[in-house]
Amino acid sequence: MAAVKSALIITNLSKDRAAVLRDQIRTYLIDRGVQIHEHSFSGNPGKYEIKKSDLAIVLGGDGTVLYSARLCVGMNMPILAVNLGTFGFLAEVNPDEWEQAFESYQNGTMGISHRIMLNTVLRRDGKDIASFCCLNDCVITSTGMAKIVNLKVNISNQEVIEYRADGIILATSTGSTAYSMAAGGPIVHPELSSMIVNPINPFTLSNRPLVIPADEEVTILVSKQQRTNLILTLDGQDVIPLLPGDEVITRKHNCSADLLSFKKMNFYEVVRKKLDWKGGPHD
Amino acid sequence: MAAVKSALIITNLSKDRAAVLRDQIRTYLIDRGVQIHEHSFSGNPGKYEIKKSDLAIVLGGDGTVLYSARLCVGMNMPILAVNLGTFGFLAEVNPDEWEQAFESYQNGTMGISHRIMLNTVLRRDGKDIASFCCLNDCVITSTGMAKIVNLKVNISNQEVIEYRADGIILATSTGSTAYSMAAGGPIVHPELSSMIVNPINPFTLSNRPLVIPADEEVTILVSKQQRTNLILTLDGQDVIPLLPGDEVITRKHNCSADLLSFKKMNFYEVVRKKLDWKGGPHD
Amino acid sequence: MAAVKSALIITNLSKDRAAVLRDQIRTYLIDRGVQIHEHSFSGNPGKYEIKKSDLAIVLGGDGTVLYSARLCVGMNMPILAVNLGTFGFLAEVNPDEWEQAFESYQNGTMGISHRIMLNTVLRRDGKDIASFCCLNDCVITSTGMAKIVNLKVNISNQEVIEYRADGIILATSTGSTAYSMAAGGPIVHPELSSMIVNPINPFTLSNRPLVIPADEEVTILVSKQQRTNLILTLDGQDVIPLLPGDEVITRKHNCSADLLSFKKMNFYEVVRKKLDWKGGPHD
Amino acid sequence: MAAVKSALIITNLSKDRAAVLRDQIRTYLIDRGVQIHEHSFSGNPGKYEIKKSDLAIVLGGDGTVLYSARLCVGMNMPILAVNLGTFGFLAEVNPDEWEQAFESYQNGTMGISHRIMLNTVLRRDGKDIASFCCLNDCVITSTGMAKIVNLKVNISNQEVIEYRADGIILATSTGSTAYSMAAGGPIVHPELSSMIVNPINPFTLSNRPLVIPADEEVTILVSKQQRTNLILTLDGQDVIPLLPGDEVITRKHNCSADLLSFKKMNFYEVVRKKLDWKGGPHD
Repeated sequence: MAAVKSALIITNLSKDRAAVLRDQIRTYLIDRGVQIHEHSFSGNPGKYEIKKSDLAIVLGGDGTVLYSARLCVGMNMPILAVNLGTFGFLAEVNPDEWEQAFESYQNGTMGISHRIMLNTVLRRDGKDIASFCCLNDCVITSTGMAKIVNLKVNISNQEVIEYRADGIILATSTGSTAYSMAAGGPIVHPELSSMIVNPINPFTLSNRPLVIPADEEVTILVSKQQRTNLILTLDGQDVIPLLPGDEVITRKHNCSADLLSFKKMNFYEVVRKKLDWKGGPHD
Repeated sequence: MAAVKSALIITNLSKDRAAVLRDQIRTYLIDRGVQIHEHSFSGNPGKYEIKKSDLAIVLGGDGTVLYSARLCVGMNMPILAVNLGTFGFLAEVNPDEWEQAFESYQNGTMGISHRIMLNTVLRRDGKDIASFCCLNDCVITSTGMAKIVNLKVNISNQEVIEYRADGIILATSTGSTAYSMAAGGPIVHPELSSMIVNPINPFTLSNRPLVIPADEEVTILVSKQQRTNLILTLDGQDVIPLLPGDEVITRKHNCSADLLSFKKMNFYEVVRKKLDWKGGPHD
Repeated sequence: MAAVKSALIITNLSKDRAAVLRDQIRTYLIDRGVQIHEHSFSGNPGKYEIKKSDLAIVLGGDGTVLYSARLCVGMNMPILAVNLGTFGFLAEVNPDEWEQAFESYQNGTMGISHRIMLNTVLRRDGKDIASFCCLNDCVITSTGMAKIVNLKVNISNQEVIEYRADGIILATSTGSTAYSMAAGGPIVHPELSSMIVNPINPFTLSNRPLVIPADEEVTILVSKQQRTNLILTLDGQDVIPLLPGDEVITRKHNCSADLLSFKKMNFYEVVRKKLDWKGGPHD
Repeated sequence: MAAVKSALIITNLSKDRAAVLRDQIRTYLIDRGVQIHEHSFSGNPGKYEIKKSDLAIVLGGDGTVLYSARLCVGMNMPILAVNLGTFGFLAEVNPDEWEQAFESYQNGTMGISHRIMLNTVLRRDGKDIASFCCLNDCVITSTGMAKIVNLKVNISNQEVIEYRADGIILATSTGSTAYSMAAGGPIVHPELSSMIVNPINPFTLSNRPLVIPADEEVTILVSKQQRTNLILTLDGQDVIPLLPGDEVITRKHNCSADLLSFKKMNFYEVVRKKLDWKGGPHD
């Protein structure tokens, strides 16, 4: 039993039906005595000072869920994500199922999929100057034209490899079906506690993604001689410019993203349906 | 402190220097009051009734370590593997280091790398007729000429995919750098508790290996209509013919293989050196 | 204008409707004064002494077309392939279109897709002891359990690479969407005059298929020390055992397979439809 | 016999020894009555009005050869490329071999490797507004952060595929070992007359490069709705911004790049040495 006394409704108004659905949900919850906080936006969500609630209800697509997971990290707020987008990898609940999902959660019959998040620290001149988190991936890339860069990877103080590549993706298992997949990475079950270290177009024939335990620490070093502009991108959404000599240090975040799910999610079915995963020509 | 009072020496006599090294080790251990059991073979190791000891000392290549891990599974015997082969992925201790390794183990300064093993059950006509274990991989393949077969994969009672392929590899993280790597699989850190489900030459464009938590149960179903001969191979060594309708059910074994290691093994260095893993043309 | 005075009807009777369709075509052609030769079979086609005709009409699936192309090589007989199989990569004409296709060919409005074939010579102890041809691919593999073999590749007298692998596929561009595709090979337009040299599960991280001009000569050398059983398979159909020291020498055949086609075949559409080739999640 | 009466020396002064070598070559050639044109630069080569000569002598790395090939296209000037870079895929002649190479060319004993080049037209609002050429590749990518774009590919007026990807590489066979290789493309013999259509990180599981005859015409269409900034890059060197609705139309150039070579180049040896191409763990 999880009595919801307060809820934060996060609404991406650029999605069709988002405003209407938000109004329905607001009315429904107020009628049941639930205190409502709201954060609605169209396009860039801007700044929002998080109101701690018992539940976050997210109306949008997978991108809105990624944003919400980063926004709510560490607040111990489960996320009920209603899919208004086309893809729905993360936002599993359909718009006409939100009431059922909410009531199931209150009844204690809703599943929760715990997903690790990553914590990324930017170290410049020996000082940790900023810290970020992500649910899908932390990506270092060169910008502008297709310029190859040198990036060194250390894992838990061991030298691993030095890439000449367009960049490196550091993905969670959840992120294995996002950008890492596009870069040739394996499909990883989202509840495996792992990180994927996947170079982007490395200038080598021996290209393989690397899957490691999530409790390792991954350091990516930008060469001091690197003149090409580099950026760090979190979940494809937050962008931070990097400088020569920067170190990007990533560990498992100590808080997870807790996504409500009707049942133990059939992850494989989602991959088959959304990504046309097939084992032969006719199945 | 791990006082070794008894040791089982497993020797692959087809390797150069194996007999000489075994004799040295035997003399050394007897001089120190250690009770010795021995299992020496050349070619097929045949049957051997395991003598429970405090330590297994394995003289051979990676293949001998795989054999020894399966032989000793469940006996709670750590393995000190001395590399007499060319590769040395699993057998980390060099021939001239065995004494140092043995003494370090007795002093409690030797590391131990715990590797999950797999337990595979063959179910025929609804009955579990045989059970096997492996450290690297459990592989189902067609035999004879390149004949494609239909194999269904279920994971923890969920339908995952049906492959038209030459076979399927089910590998541990340890096995990720063996046959699974040859079939295009990712490099997985050997201490990640995961299984890799990797089809062999699937007749599809959407081929990706799948990495899942090791506590899932993987069932591979041979179609009842399958006329092609199929075999189940454990660690590339034990071969069992399959019949139409067979189910091959694999879980994490409840015992691990415990490999002595001088230090927290630098797995990445091994991959770079043995498999020429590189991130660019000049590094 | 191509007045057909004689036709060879090759019928795979194991396909539904094959016999009925053959009888219809036979009656139709006899009514129009065309002399008929017939070769009908179910399962193994056995031996057949080819009757030179103006046109080969093939009733079956892609496998029957491959067989027919090898059977008719060098006879200068275009192939009208009616698809009775599930796939239809090579057999482009649907069963209800055969009459239209035949008349279009007579009117000179039918296209012809010229496909290179390969000529493979088996050299043993310095002597050329047998010669084979294929339309899709010439494959060397080990048999039995998953045993890795050493195979050296020379191209036009230059040393190229030595593989430790399950085998090697030598495919035509036509064969790029067959077994070579399953082994990770590129999609090659069938009218490009090229060969693809594609290893099967090579024990290396630096695995890339190689595409070369079709007028090069590819020699694959079986090591004299190779104890594993190896076979040579043509188009997945003809199987020849190999011995240690054998050389398998492949060149472009001096005759092509000429497949009738309603128009300049939209090869890409076939790949999209039959192999679910997609460039994104929703297209 | 190819009597060289005039030579254009193209020198990349940012390479060590370039100026000294140029001076040696100039003196040598003047002593032999050869008329000299010179184009020396450091960093950006800027504009240069080409002086038609009997031979272009290029002092630099592979990048300088790419630049020179584009500069000299259509002038019927063979290229003697002296390698001052680290890689030397295209610049085959070592610094101490230039005299031997030059004399061999005059004696008619030097080989020439004819490489197709690509001609790319930019069509905007239905008008062809610019035309470019390249020897390695023509690449369309999004700029800035990792933003996926929609790109449609048509080949010779047939719809092929629509990619959601970071971009598309259109490479010659020569370019197969450059950026296309980094994006997972096959190794293609440089003298095969083919183009490789290779998407960059496409958001799909069914990713395969496509190899087509070089006499096809490839059109890449930027969607009119595409808001992301896109650029067209030739040989990694010339960059042109694209607009929504642009069409990028590429055909084989009617002139080739003619690279002097001591012998029929052993392309495979270069791939093994420069890119560590291996077929197994120990060869």
